[in-house]
Amino acid sequence: MKIKVAGVGLTKFGELWDKSLLDLAIEASIGAIKDSRIDKKAIDAIFVGNMLIGKIAGQDHLGPVVASSLGLSCASFRIEGACASGGLAVHLAIQGILAGTYKNVLVVGVEKMTDAPTGQITWALMGASSSKERKAGLTFPALYALITQAHMQKYGTTRKQLAAVSVKNHYHASLNKSAQYPFEITIEKVLNSNLISYPITLFDSSPITDGAAAVVLSSDTNSKGVYITGSATFSDTIDLAERDSLTEFKATKLACSEALSQAGVEIQDIRVAEVHDCFTIAEILAMEDLGFCPAGAGGKFVESRTTRLGGKCPVNTSGGLKACGHPVGATGVKQIIEITQQLKDSAGARQVKNANCGLTQNVGGTGATVVVHVLQN
Amino acid sequence: MKIKVAGVGLTKFGELWDKSLLDLAIEASIGAIKDSRIDKKAIDAIFVGNMLIGKIAGQDHLGPVVASSLGLSCASFRIEGACASGGLAVHLAIQGILAGTYKNVLVVGVEKMTDAPTGQITWALMGASSSKERKAGLTFPALYALITQAHMQKYGTTRKQLAAVSVKNHYHASLNKSAQYPFEITIEKVLNSNLISYPITLFDSSPITDGAAAVVLSSDTNSKGVYITGSATFSDTIDLAERDSLTEFKATKLACSEALSQAGVEIQDIRVAEVHDCFTIAEILAMEDLGFCPAGAGGKFVESRTTRLGGKCPVNTSGGLKACGHPVGATGVKQIIEITQQLKDSAGARQVKNANCGLTQNVGGTGATVVVHVLQN
Repeated sequence: MKIKVAGVGLTKFGELWDKSLLDLAIEASIGAIKDSRIDKKAIDAIFVGNMLIGKIAGQDHLGPVVASSLGLSCASFRIEGACASGGLAVHLAIQGILAGTYKNVLVVGVEKMTDAPTGQITWALMGASSSKERKAGLTFPALYALITQAHMQKYGTTRKQLAAVSVKNHYHASLNKSAQYPFEITIEKVLNSNLISYPITLFDSSPITDGAAAVVLSSDTNSKGVYITGSATFSDTIDLAERDSLTEFKATKLACSEALSQAGVEIQDIRVAEVHDCFTIAEILAMEDLGFCPAGAGGKFVESRTTRLGGKCPVNTSGGLKACGHPVGATGVKQIIEITQQLKDSAGARQVKNANCGLTQNVGGTGATVVVHVLQN
Repeated sequence: MKIKVAGVGLTKFGELWDKSLLDLAIEASIGAIKDSRIDKKAIDAIFVGNMLIGKIAGQDHLGPVVASSLGLSCASFRIEGACASGGLAVHLAIQGILAGTYKNVLVVGVEKMTDAPTGQITWALMGASSSKERKAGLTFPALYALITQAHMQKYGTTRKQLAAVSVKNHYHASLNKSAQYPFEITIEKVLNSNLISYPITLFDSSPITDGAAAVVLSSDTNSKGVYITGSATFSDTIDLAERDSLTEFKATKLACSEALSQAGVEIQDIRVAEVHDCFTIAEILAMEDLGFCPAGAGGKFVESRTTRLGGKCPVNTSGGLKACGHPVGATGVKQIIEITQQLKDSAGARQVKNANCGLTQNVGGTGATVVVHVLQN
């Protein structure tokens, strides 16, 4: 499998009061099309990754909303898979190219979250979860708190280890102009910030974010550049209660194994990765489930600085969901952009040396959907 | 292109107070899997077509909701493109098979609409339209009323001709056990029913419906059966006001031309069709845009009985959206099922003789998305 990342476009991530969802989607899309140097008219399909705008502002049918704003009448789709909407949109765009149906595809992930009151956003996000979990009064921080507690009990993972994820990702974000929170924080800051759902504090949690990320994918395999060489997704039970284990995401393991196999590489070959750190425990699970470290060792692994810039395999150089921000539909596409920039040696102050193989992991809900991509140059 | 329709499953369409969205999705899915005689474990992807359940009941992320209810952890997706969600789900499932990524794919379209108050449904459905149209206070009947009036003024189309669509489709539904309204009506009944938005009456309009439709699509091309041989989708401006013409859907023309070309057939070869008669004018536009008759002649064409059972090319033998019902996410998949049954000679009382080539046309919004499929045996 070899799909070219022909162009990328990214908006600022943050509280963007002066911009609509469509403004953001179009800014990122035009950026990606320009970057690709492909004539706009040669785009033959548009995949929009979005979770929330129907629920919080009434607008569905985003395929033709974006297509017509770009002046295109090509095929267009809106893909939804909770916080994995962007990654799934990339995966399905790839299928259209591999099928031979489409040659140049625009994928744009977008979310406009800060216009809605927090209570509405909390309700809307819980659509990613099961009706039983909603009826039980659980929120997403509460669900991930259950996972965190299980991991602490089983493996002795500490709150300081969790906080280390956040500190690292804020450091990376401090080098990223697009990030929502481009500043450093300390372990103490995380531990002493407001408790959301024990043991998760405010600074263990990714924020509410506006933003868009777009890529142009192409069937062109003749030129130099960055290629997606593996793309896989699997699902797991929507209910946490139905899982055999709370301390792993099986869908991550399955998707990672399949994507690495497609790419013909092993996890040891990965030099840089973007993973789904919606809460700090999620990055620790990702390290274990992707095979960067053994089960239970994720906390120590993060503390070892292996995944910090300068380490052997930097993780979430963008700042991750925690500090770059988490516009849910955009996240999976932004991950592809960050790895593309790293592999193109164009990541500036946060450039990973000799990055030639990278990976993204995008999660929907509490692991009910996971999408993994492998990129190579 | 040759994708096998390996199995089909359909629930009753109607006001199904005793069943949840998940009940319906699973009933149709299990039906399709059983019909396909493919082992459930061999299903490697699930595509769920749904527009509304997030907005009206809070549940998104339907891919793993359906997958985990079936006990599967394969790839799963939710596709949304307003009332074309089902057709788009079929199109994208086909891409996954053509790509070689998936071999056996379950596509399930589902909607549970009758639990919500009418006002909420009206609001939710308007997500298919543009924000300008919503701000102008337009509803879907009002948008299609504008199209109807334009067609009447330009071509002299009459209310009786519009009513003839409804009368024909109710006749077909009277032969279909799954239909929401399996009874005949008269031209007078349509003309004298409550006015919704001039000139559209209650009986010019498709109803609010609960229901699910599922197909198993397969890469197997060695055995006898029904195959999808063309699949294409295009988009148009989301705003009606931005169109050059109100009396045609350009996306229908583009999608039809491409799908016929893929299948290597012409419109004259089509022996049976399911088209998107959300309002009576929509079937008249479909006849013209698909090329069954010249522009402007759709009204007379419907009156000619060519598209009634016994005619040269029966249209909407299921009863169409008008009389079989319109659970929006399910409609595009149900169309595939009806044509499959016709081509398998298993449509019972509504069997079209010598049907060997059929077509479906599924519309999102007021033509901003159109998906066309061609099926052959």
